[in-house]
Amino acid sequence: MKSAVVTLFFVLLMSGSVFAADTPVAPNGIALFKNYRSWQLIAPSYREDKQHIRVILGNPAAVRAMKNKTRPMPDGAVLAKIAWTVKKHPQFPVATEPAEFAQVEFMVKDSVKYKATGGWGFARFVGPGLKPYGKNADFVQECFGCHTPVKGNDYLFTDYAAVP
Amino acid sequence: MKSAVVTLFFVLLMSGSVFAADTPVAPNGIALFKNYRSWQLIAPSYREDKQHIRVILGNPAAVRAMKNKTRPMPDGAVLAKIAWTVKKHPQFPVATEPAEFAQVEFMVKDSVKYKATGGWGFARFVGPGLKPYGKNADFVQECFGCHTPVKGNDYLFTDYAAVP
Ligand code: HEC
Ligand code: HEC
Repeated sequence: MKSAVVTLFFVLLMSGSVFAADTPVAPNGIALFKNYRSWQLIAPSYREDKQHIRVILGNPAAVRAMKNKTRPMPDGAVLAKIAWTVKKHPQFPVATEPAEFAQVEFMVKDSVKYKATGGWGFARFVGPGLKPYGKNADFVQECFGCHTPVKGNDYLFTDYAAVP
Repeated sequence: MKSAVVTLFFVLLMSGSVFAADTPVAPNGIALFKNYRSWQLIAPSYREDKQHIRVILGNPAAVRAMKNKTRPMPDGAVLAKIAWTVKKHPQFPVATEPAEFAQVEFMVKDSVKYKATGGWGFARFVGPGLKPYGKNADFVQECFGCHTPVKGNDYLFTDYAAVP
């Protein structure tokens, strides 16, 4: 009995410390994915208008779907796009490299939950504080609107950057 | 006895098919790493002079050393730099994306074997055919020469592109 109480105490303590980690959550309820930085690479991209260098990473389900060109992607697929501001490499100025973290964006596939927006849930976290983007859940209209021209590719701009 | 012969036959057959896979080998003996495309991301980079978009990936030992800023890197660390030619995204021309695979380069840490070149073995494989670069093993002087200005960072230009 005593050991059960002790166990319960530790379980509560640990779940508490999970909350205490203060994961940012977008206005539509999508929380920052904790381990996205170690997901596999789908492709890099460079935005000269914003002077951002970017990578699109995917969780295992998304990488598999990318390699097999599966569209629409299966539920559970998640894509992350990380953007950094750029700098010229001090020792080699024709090379443009990441300077500061700018933002991370996610697209989360759930064909039922996010039916109204092509089966994709959108979320953006901005700056070093990872501030959730959007006043309310309607912010996704901006994302969805811009991704609608690529509806034929399941609303995805990016394809897998292949190697021989 | 018969089953031992059969086993030996299959072992030879399989090792044969490994050779048959025709892994390209650089003039200094470094072979293409088979699974490098799924290694974790260190950083993206954009070379406006060459019109290449690039990513630097690392094997687990290299990623660990990058995160901990360990210099010199430990033996066994391997970095891969993949370069693609670029195209404007047809639906969104301010976005520059990978077009065709251009080349992949490796730096392989072995402080004894590659002592003469800062502990790094260099290799480059070019184009869709992954043609090994260099007439003979001296090609590494070109690589090492260009990486010498960053000797203070263990001959590495790139640092880990961090997220908060
Ligand atoms: C102004 C147009 C525009 C808007 C608005 C926009 N995106 Fe995108 N998005 C793009 C483009 C273009 C790409 C291709 C990658 C690149 O070059 O940046 C992209 C790529 C992505 C990707 C990687 C998968 C893919 O489609 O390539 C994710 C994830 C993403 N956007 C999330 C979002 C989220 C979340 C929002 C809103 C909070 C959003 N986007 C709003 C234009 C837009
Ligand atoms: C003209 C200069 C130059 C030469 C020659 C050169 N490199 Fe590099 N290398 C760079 C720069 C600059 C970077 C930083 C990434 C970028 O922006 O391309 C780099 C990055 C790399 C990286 C990623 C790790 C790092 O240092 O950032 C590898 C691996 C690499 N080079 C391999 C090679 C190999 C192999 C050769 C020769 C066959 C070679 N390099 C020759 C300039 C050079």
